[in-house]
Amino acid sequence: MMEEKNTVIAGRNPVLEALKKDCLISRILVSVGEKEGSILKILSEARKKNIPVKQVSNTKLDSIIPAHQGVVAYISPIEFYEISDLLDVAKERKEPPFIVILDQIEDVHNLGAIARSAEAAGCHGIIIPLHRSAPVNAAAMKASAGALLHIKVARVTNLNAAIEQLKKQGLWICGTDKDANKQYYDADLKGPLAVVIGSEGAGMSRLVAKNCDFTVNIPLSGNITSLNASCAAAIVIFEAVKQRKA
Amino acid sequence: MMEEKNTVIAGRNPVLEALKKDCLISRILVSVGEKEGSILKILSEARKKNIPVKQVSNTKLDSIIPAHQGVVAYISPIEFYEISDLLDVAKERKEPPFIVILDQIEDVHNLGAIARSAEAAGCHGIIIPLHRSAPVNAAAMKASAGALLHIKVARVTNLNAAIEQLKKQGLWICGTDKDANKQYYDADLKGPLAVVIGSEGAGMSRLVAKNCDFTVNIPLSGNITSLNASCAAAIVIFEAVKQRKA
Repeated sequence: MMEEKNTVIAGRNPVLEALKKDCLISRILVSVGEKEGSILKILSEARKKNIPVKQVSNTKLDSIIPAHQGVVAYISPIEFYEISDLLDVAKERKEPPFIVILDQIEDVHNLGAIARSAEAAGCHGIIIPLHRSAPVNAAAMKASAGALLHIKVARVTNLNAAIEQLKKQGLWICGTDKDANKQYYDADLKGPLAVVIGSEGAGMSRLVAKNCDFTVNIPLSGNITSLNASCAAAIVIFEAVKQRKA
Repeated sequence: MMEEKNTVIAGRNPVLEALKKDCLISRILVSVGEKEGSILKILSEARKKNIPVKQVSNTKLDSIIPAHQGVVAYISPIEFYEISDLLDVAKERKEPPFIVILDQIEDVHNLGAIARSAEAAGCHGIIIPLHRSAPVNAAAMKASAGALLHIKVARVTNLNAAIEQLKKQGLWICGTDKDANKQYYDADLKGPLAVVIGSEGAGMSRLVAKNCDFTVNIPLSGNITSLNASCAAAIVIFEAVKQRKA
């Protein structure tokens, strides 16, 4: 994470000031056991603003930056949006909504590559969970080839609540699942649509899978029984692009 | 490249012995200016066996392993095959040949991810150039999720000669090119086929592009005007899979 050095704010007052001044902060690391007044203020501000906070060892903080006073904040390279902002993009373009949901994608390169595919495909936005997601950091930005500057990302506390919200707005939720009976090219991907991409290891979480309107499979026939998450995402996203152009 | 430490052979006699004993060596690094007898023998053996040799500084070698005596060899995690071996796989499976050609893919993660997609798609092999290719090393193996152990890779000195050979065997050569008029899903990808994936930056080299029977484009509509090479490869490879299943 060397490349992130210049996007770090260290120390209690600097982090608190950054929080108060609405700087774009993607996440905060706090030394385990820190409970002093100013740290509590930081935790409370972070909670208000939906910024994930992780407890880590002092040694970990030392390895990031010296003189951290038990707290380090990462500046976010992007602003996060609401789900309604993503849907507004579709309205403005007069297109049926086309959203990509990342369910626990943990690798910043996958996150970046999927953002690149989604932006290049003309999708209207990406939804990621607040917790258990790769951070949108400098490495993700690089892997996205800058796409993360052009596509709106919504960060939500609860992915299933987000899915409910999308359903109410008329979107169909398409999950990707190895065990689905329907091939991705046999599904109708033309209307208002959100495609869910599951995590690199375990796929979609059980509840998210249950909340999908339908799931699709990519037929594989080799010894390797899964694709890289960003490759799988590209295949399904561009099938939808094809159907939408037809 | 820390992960490669245990796949390195250092020193003149060890490298020469490894070459003589047909160990799997992927590439050799020689200190600039080294011209002693045993080094000349190493260079000549490497040439006979189509193993790429690169001249680097002594400092570079020092950073890889101490006491290298001016020469370091990387053990290859895989054996390389001839193009005819790849075509034999198609014959055995009684399928029209389906080969992926990598034209100067420079990133080991892309090489690995493409190998993973190709293997999972049931392709019969991958062709990479001897020079100007990401090495098939431990990092590529990891990115391939082990797929490089299951799909045959041919390493050729001249990609255009390889393309000629494939054409003589009845394969159609499909290039991928941003400026192609035909969309990838409008092309016939059912018969004996080799798909060429161009480099991350510049796409296919000019001569390779000229030698393709046809080129296809993936229609993009965002601000970002290109996809990650492994995502682009996955889209075209799985379009071919779909057509072959139909």
